[in-house]
Amino acid sequence: MSRGVQAPFDVEKLDRLMDEADLSLVLASSRHNVRYLCGGYYYHFHLNSTRMGRSQYLSFVGIPKKRLGDSFYVGRAEESGQREAEGLWVPVIVEAVRGTVTAAEGVMTMIRRLGLSSSRIGVEVPFLPADAYLALRREFPEAEFVDSTPVFDELRALKNEREISILKSVYARVAESIRAAFQGSHSGETTFQIAQRVEMEMAQRGVAFLFSFVCAGPGFLRAPSSKKWENGQVLHIDAGGSRLDYIADICRMGCLGEPSALAKELHRACIEVQDHVRSIVRPGVTCRDVLAAGEAVSRRYPFSSCARFVVHSIGMVPYEQPTFSPETIRALEKGMVLSIETDFLHPQVGHVKIEDAVAVTATGCEGLGDFGRELHVVAV
Amino acid sequence: MSRGVQAPFDVEKLDRLMDEADLSLVLASSRHNVRYLCGGYYYHFHLNSTRMGRSQYLSFVGIPKKRLGDSFYVGRAEESGQREAEGLWVPVIVEAVRGTVTAAEGVMTMIRRLGLSSSRIGVEVPFLPADAYLALRREFPEAEFVDSTPVFDELRALKNEREISILKSVYARVAESIRAAFQGSHSGETTFQIAQRVEMEMAQRGVAFLFSFVCAGPGFLRAPSSKKWENGQVLHIDAGGSRLDYIADICRMGCLGEPSALAKELHRACIEVQDHVRSIVRPGVTCRDVLAAGEAVSRRYPFSSCARFVVHSIGMVPYEQPTFSPETIRALEKGMVLSIETDFLHPQVGHVKIEDAVAVTATGCEGLGDFGRELHVVAV
Repeated sequence: MSRGVQAPFDVEKLDRLMDEADLSLVLASSRHNVRYLCGGYYYHFHLNSTRMGRSQYLSFVGIPKKRLGDSFYVGRAEESGQREAEGLWVPVIVEAVRGTVTAAEGVMTMIRRLGLSSSRIGVEVPFLPADAYLALRREFPEAEFVDSTPVFDELRALKNEREISILKSVYARVAESIRAAFQGSHSGETTFQIAQRVEMEMAQRGVAFLFSFVCAGPGFLRAPSSKKWENGQVLHIDAGGSRLDYIADICRMGCLGEPSALAKELHRACIEVQDHVRSIVRPGVTCRDVLAAGEAVSRRYPFSSCARFVVHSIGMVPYEQPTFSPETIRALEKGMVLSIETDFLHPQVGHVKIEDAVAVTATGCEGLGDFGRELHVVAV
Repeated sequence: MSRGVQAPFDVEKLDRLMDEADLSLVLASSRHNVRYLCGGYYYHFHLNSTRMGRSQYLSFVGIPKKRLGDSFYVGRAEESGQREAEGLWVPVIVEAVRGTVTAAEGVMTMIRRLGLSSSRIGVEVPFLPADAYLALRREFPEAEFVDSTPVFDELRALKNEREISILKSVYARVAESIRAAFQGSHSGETTFQIAQRVEMEMAQRGVAFLFSFVCAGPGFLRAPSSKKWENGQVLHIDAGGSRLDYIADICRMGCLGEPSALAKELHRACIEVQDHVRSIVRPGVTCRDVLAAGEAVSRRYPFSSCARFVVHSIGMVPYEQPTFSPETIRALEKGMVLSIETDFLHPQVGHVKIEDAVAVTATGCEGLGDFGRELHVVAV
């Protein structure tokens, strides 16, 4: 059985979640969850693009409840070099030829071998390609296929030390990339050019570029475009990057030349709201109280009508668990990571925004990539 | 009707393909096909990662047969800035909230409005998330949902001038990136470090990194790893990158210090096979004859037992149309783009490989990114 098999995630928690969801087998097939369950492993050829011809690369990790030693991985034969070099922990390997349905066929072999043909099986329904899903359902008419996404989402909710350390590293690098992008910017550049610079700065720091919203105010167009950053205008860079699929999502502000008093005030208000929220984040505080605290403070300003306050957790996925709504009575725990966003969409100044993340610690919280939060004044 | 609406693809060809496949409506939802039909447009926030919480970003382009003016785009409301800045041609816009099923609901509205609730509809079955597919099928039990992937695959088969020009640019940049990666390499570096350098060189040239196989021979491990490149060893870099989702896939060879006579011979053989195949590529030649020509030449060498020869078309997708097998009697046409690969997996020397692409012209073919094909001798 599972004697000797060591998995890089909380196996007991997964068993408990599978019990609660009444699942005999969970199948991960999205890149994030495959990578999470494999301790970072994903076939490098298809990290950035899965498509080949009329189908796409698909891999699966299958974990039968309380039978870790029977866990299996379905991938391509040509992955073997990387699998061995990285020491993939999964005990059973099934090699499939290219394509989605052939990968599903690899899973079928294992479902039969494990005697689970008429059990309740979790698959990632919002991510699994339709043809692979249909093939599984056709093959096992007596099995029940339900969505495993919530199980994995909850499994990932608390980050361990290794994960926090990866997140710290990616937050630091994305914050540096944004700072460097401000430092390299100059009058008359387009928001597209600035977004390109953010991407390059990330690449130089070993970060996979995800996105870069660049908004020169006044005006709220955040998509990189031919709009120029003009003297006296504020500009925000709201950018995301990843390492090993752990994401950093940061927003910073700059101004071309001396900012107006109002721009300074809006920026200061963002920092105040962010810092107030941080001051209450600790284990035991409910998610809705965190949200309410940010909303309450952001309502104190004369420009509160253009305020927006959002909290979402972050890790491999933005908006993972826990969620933050007026209804969420779940309490914070050590290892949760929160992305906190304060925005003022001001008609005269533009979209002023600061976004930061904190990791919940045993007694409070710790900022990730906490620099460059000042208003970067770029020389005209 | 479609009066005044200009689409950035061959509308008549799409209508003809839809006729042949007996489809009243085609729905594109994979990034490549959405982008193709939208003339390059894709919501920038989700180009590199679609996942949000327990679901993912999904957009659709729907084109009813011979009713271009009724074409629709389903995306997020927050895309409007980018859509307007880039002038997305699609006449009808449906805004959906985040998620796969909500996007499918946007499509449902349009299917009903267009009176196609019981028609034959093409969806990208190997790419469409299962929940969106199931929602559509549940909503329209009288409709028939079939795979639209072959229709789009064929639509993209012939590249127009704009596409060839993007491909030329990305091939040149990827070839430059590989050359720069060789120039920057030195003794004792790991294949992982070399792969990282390829990625950075691409970023500096505005190319989105896709993959980099790095193989130091003897030995055939192509995944970037802690394996070091040692003196006297050959090394191949087989790397892919993209711009606007058009791909370049190139393999080049280097040697740390002076290559052996056999290494030189293997490299020269690759170039000879490649160049011989190019000499016969022109409109009218069948795909199987192209394949047979490469196979025949690669069998002439004393080390032919370790030869491998592959041709596949390339554009937005590797292995798109046409395909190259001993059965393919389809003839080449102007605008097809072929990636030609010659490999010798030699037990003493290692994996010697050259991969190049050519665009079929009116009278022959033209190489893309045709430099750096020599054996790069890197100083010890």
